[in-house]
Amino acid sequence: MDQPPENRWTRRHLLSLEALSKAEIEFLLDTADSFKEVSTRSIKKVPALRGRVVVNAFFEDSTRTRTSFTLAASRLSADVIDFSEKGSSVSKGETLIDTARNIEAMGVDILVLRHPAAGAAELLARTVKCSVVNAGDGAHEHPTQGLLDLYTIRERFGRVAGLKVAIVGDIANSRVARSNLWSLTKLGAEVIMVGPPTLLPRSFESLGARCVHDFDSIIGEVDVINMLRVQFERIKSSQFPSVREFTRLFGLTSERFSRCKPDVFVMHPGPMNRGIEISSTIADGPNSGILTQVANGLAVRMAVLYLVTAASV
Amino acid sequence: MDQPPENRWTRRHLLSLEALSKAEIEFLLDTADSFKEVSTRSIKKVPALRGRVVVNAFFEDSTRTRTSFTLAASRLSADVIDFSEKGSSVSKGETLIDTARNIEAMGVDILVLRHPAAGAAELLARTVKCSVVNAGDGAHEHPTQGLLDLYTIRERFGRVAGLKVAIVGDIANSRVARSNLWSLTKLGAEVIMVGPPTLLPRSFESLGARCVHDFDSIIGEVDVINMLRVQFERIKSSQFPSVREFTRLFGLTSERFSRCKPDVFVMHPGPMNRGIEISSTIADGPNSGILTQVANGLAVRMAVLYLVTAASV
Amino acid sequence: MDQPPENRWTRRHLLSLEALSKAEIEFLLDTADSFKEVSTRSIKKVPALRGRVVVNAFFEDSTRTRTSFTLAASRLSADVIDFSEKGSSVSKGETLIDTARNIEAMGVDILVLRHPAAGAAELLARTVKCSVVNAGDGAHEHPTQGLLDLYTIRERFGRVAGLKVAIVGDIANSRVARSNLWSLTKLGAEVIMVGPPTLLPRSFESLGARCVHDFDSIIGEVDVINMLRVQFERIKSSQFPSVREFTRLFGLTSERFSRCKPDVFVMHPGPMNRGIEISSTIADGPNSGILTQVANGLAVRMAVLYLVTAASV
Repeated sequence: MDQPPENRWTRRHLLSLEALSKAEIEFLLDTADSFKEVSTRSIKKVPALRGRVVVNAFFEDSTRTRTSFTLAASRLSADVIDFSEKGSSVSKGETLIDTARNIEAMGVDILVLRHPAAGAAELLARTVKCSVVNAGDGAHEHPTQGLLDLYTIRERFGRVAGLKVAIVGDIANSRVARSNLWSLTKLGAEVIMVGPPTLLPRSFESLGARCVHDFDSIIGEVDVINMLRVQFERIKSSQFPSVREFTRLFGLTSERFSRCKPDVFVMHPGPMNRGIEISSTIADGPNSGILTQVANGLAVRMAVLYLVTAASV
Repeated sequence: MDQPPENRWTRRHLLSLEALSKAEIEFLLDTADSFKEVSTRSIKKVPALRGRVVVNAFFEDSTRTRTSFTLAASRLSADVIDFSEKGSSVSKGETLIDTARNIEAMGVDILVLRHPAAGAAELLARTVKCSVVNAGDGAHEHPTQGLLDLYTIRERFGRVAGLKVAIVGDIANSRVARSNLWSLTKLGAEVIMVGPPTLLPRSFESLGARCVHDFDSIIGEVDVINMLRVQFERIKSSQFPSVREFTRLFGLTSERFSRCKPDVFVMHPGPMNRGIEISSTIADGPNSGILTQVANGLAVRMAVLYLVTAASV
Repeated sequence: MDQPPENRWTRRHLLSLEALSKAEIEFLLDTADSFKEVSTRSIKKVPALRGRVVVNAFFEDSTRTRTSFTLAASRLSADVIDFSEKGSSVSKGETLIDTARNIEAMGVDILVLRHPAAGAAELLARTVKCSVVNAGDGAHEHPTQGLLDLYTIRERFGRVAGLKVAIVGDIANSRVARSNLWSLTKLGAEVIMVGPPTLLPRSFESLGARCVHDFDSIIGEVDVINMLRVQFERIKSSQFPSVREFTRLFGLTSERFSRCKPDVFVMHPGPMNRGIEISSTIADGPNSGILTQVANGLAVRMAVLYLVTAASV
């Protein structure tokens, strides 16, 4: 009993970071630490989930996150199956539940769900007996992205508490921003949301973020900058004048970067629009943690799949 | 030699239930029994087909059946590969054969085929040397669905002989109805086909079914009701006035259900149109075997993959 | 040290056959020989790449080649993942590199790339640290197809040197023709390119091929005929009068076949247009090596995946 009970993982699902305690998040990151080493071996496999079945149920396109979950499950020796139903048969919430119940009836252990509706993962978790891992639900949360970002920051700085982290771009529609906010503030970082008023509602202040519409006003004081991906379809429609204007005001350009702290850590959840929200030189430069995020995503997802399974036994 | 020869499985393919003897069907169900237990373990794997290759060649959309076959093969430790060619290159029968020969030339052991043309699986079985499993060929047969339905009924009642089974809906276009009919009658059940005249041709009587156009006339006497899925595209076109009318006459509504035997067993091959062919209360109620069907599908498909491989050695 | 140094494989990538020496090609074919035997076992698996990850990144449709690589990797006990991103996010070269870097960051060992742009595989090989295998880049090369054709010819005749090989059809747009040309000439075969002037540029002569516009003029002297697939969309547009005309002048008809050497060896990379570039009787007859090509593709791809991994350690 060398581990205090608050460090133990007891959740069968991973639905949001809002719901997790600081101790749970730290335990998850520590578990990811021990899995990160596996990815450096030439035989990248541990038998932890041998004979278990992980189903990727992605109802939105997401090659990267799906591939990352597939590889994570595969490194734990689980069997992974892709389940994607398109069109009308899953467009109704009722049918999503039927789909999940069907998957579960086939003897699945973990259901990894990406769905356009906020709350979809939680809905299923109340319905099925297998574990549910939220891989992104609408504009609500993307908890494994939040965890891998946190893991990468902690790895870089040796701590999270006391850091100033700017999250920049289309905050309103971003589940990444929400998951980052919850996990960063729980671990003691200061989160500054940066974006135009149309994409950064004041309501984020009540969630613990500082909201800023002028990127340049905080550029020199932050330790971490997390650039969100510009969603062209939204910007074109109504919420922002033009892509060029976005880059001028909120892009991480070389000029703007020159006013950052020398050891500022630059992150991006990918895929990047190079030259729009981030300049290529910075993305590929020594301050960038972008590919480290991808690598850490594997370790974090291995930890998540491992822990929810262990909690289900 | 403790098994009589008629109980042994000698078929390299599973193409239809029409072709199977009662003894073969029962041997298959008994084999499924022994595999069902595997699905209840935490490590759901047996090494029976280790190093074998199963190819899912689905030329019609079918997430559920494909996932079920994939999981079944995976539990037997086989490697499973999805092969789907879209568009004109496989629309000609000639090219389907070329596709199959190519798959076979790659050293595949079992070809699981779903195809819109009745007879496609039989055509391939005459052409290739690997095993062919019919996963649905046009409106002809869907033998593993028929077997899992049969398995589920036998599990529920301890027998099949003497039961009265109603199959309700669009009989004319249903391969499920055909596979059910063959297997149920071979095992001694009485099959009552229920549907409007446009969707229930009299020719089914010559196949051994009782044909009934008035659902209510038999509602009180049946032990099992198998509700087929309403195919909206067909009903809209010409064969039936409206969905509302279909529900009124052939839907398993709460009112109609109240006139059933108390222990009537309700089945559906999925995916359900809740509120159309079946009421949600019944689908989720204690008389429903719908999720049990899904679970049993795994065991039945494991048995099929196992037996056709054993017969090929 | 029983192997001379020039027979050893030291390349981390397989990008083109143009770049390989005769000794390298022969070493690769010899390695394929030892893997071919694996495909004849009932348990078609060796543990050579256990714990390694192969990613199929196909940015063009290709069920056959992708399935062949998947099976080859799977027989070597590697984990295989399909990664396909569609639409605009990978249409820019810049983003293809980001995609590859992302895949690599996930700890992938081999990236198998099919891409519409000539040079795409080489571009990535300069960027990423994992192995890159070219599975077809635009009209440039398709090295594993070239190797399997070579392997099949060598297997049939016991040698390559001195053979006369005709490659017939749309040469200009064919990466198969280019990969065949390089590998056949390196091993001492004479290559005769056959096609209409619009589809057979004179520039091929400077690459070592004999160019002929009249199929019948060489029909009696060749040992091997490799019929390329007719790409209807190109022929329709402008480069050739009609499909009927193509068949009349360049199709391998029974009449034309009757004037071939008795033991002429007929090949086709698939999928065939039966009755257009090749008659069904010939495709299925005793002179056809078409299905042998498919089977040998597995052995050759196993050898490629094995050797590039060994060279990366």
